Amino acid sequence: MNYDDNNIFAKILRKEIPSNVIYEDDQTLAIMDVMPQSDGHALVIPKSPSVNLLDASSESLSHTISIVQVIARAGMKAFQADGITIQQFNNAAGGQSVFHTHFHVIPRYDGIVLKGHTGEMADAELIKTHATKYIDALNA
Amino acid sequence: MNYDDNNIFAKILRKEIPSNVIYEDDQTLAIMDVMPQSDGHALVIPKSPSVNLLDASSESLSHTISIVQVIARAGMKAFQADGITIQQFNNAAGGQSVFHTHFHVIPRYDGIVLKGHTGEMADAELIKTHATKYIDALNA
Repeated sequence: MNYDDNNIFAKILRKEIPSNVIYEDDQTLAIMDVMPQSDGHALVIPKSPSVNLLDASSESLSHTISIVQVIARAGMKAFQADGITIQQFNNAAGGQSVFHTHFHVIPRYDGIVLKGHTGEMADAELIKTHATKYIDALNA
Repeated sequence: MNYDDNNIFAKILRKEIPSNVIYEDDQTLAIMDVMPQSDGHALVIPKSPSVNLLDASSESLSHTISIVQVIARAGMKAFQADGITIQQFNNAAGGQSVFHTHFHVIPRYDGIVLKGHTGEMADAELIKTHATKYIDALNA
């Protein structure tokens, strides 16, 4: 599959459409998932274009996973989470719906089953509040 | 949580108990999951001890994700898969059941829903056959 420059994450990376940014460096952007499966569901997105882990550069993945760790640790603190589930989907059969490489960082809570992807956007104000929690935890 | 040197992956890394190894280097071991959720379900395990991604070293994670990519690409080829799902669980609430860092590499097939973790071991001969498929794909 060829990389399509007009996927939603490419547009978010170019700041053509807004997102709730929680972390950014020269190689990576981390944002809130607007259809969270759990409170604090975030996405870590390498800036260099690749469809998924199968065609990404090894260098890009190495940096990205270090930021996944940073966000996972922040998520534990910010949401007093009990655990973190990391998911990364490749191709439609693998669960992928946006075809730019990304990692899901999903805070988990004792006794709470992961919600499915409902396809419904969460309340925008709530997502903003959660972004602030991440930013505060990252700056603490 | 403190790292327990007697977890099953620590024993596998020390070769105290057998596993179906598909790849090994000085920092990483990749083996077949004996309770596969899909044909070709493999695990990539960093050799350095850590409970999960939250306490792992960034260096260890960076190398591990590059091997996750190697195994994912081999899985696509070996099993003529349509996609790959990567999962990585942290703490019991996050879905973790063995407390040594590991990444699940799960080949996926169009129209086939991921099986749950049944807790039942797959046929040992079948798993061996699948390990051989990976090894052949990695050596091709």
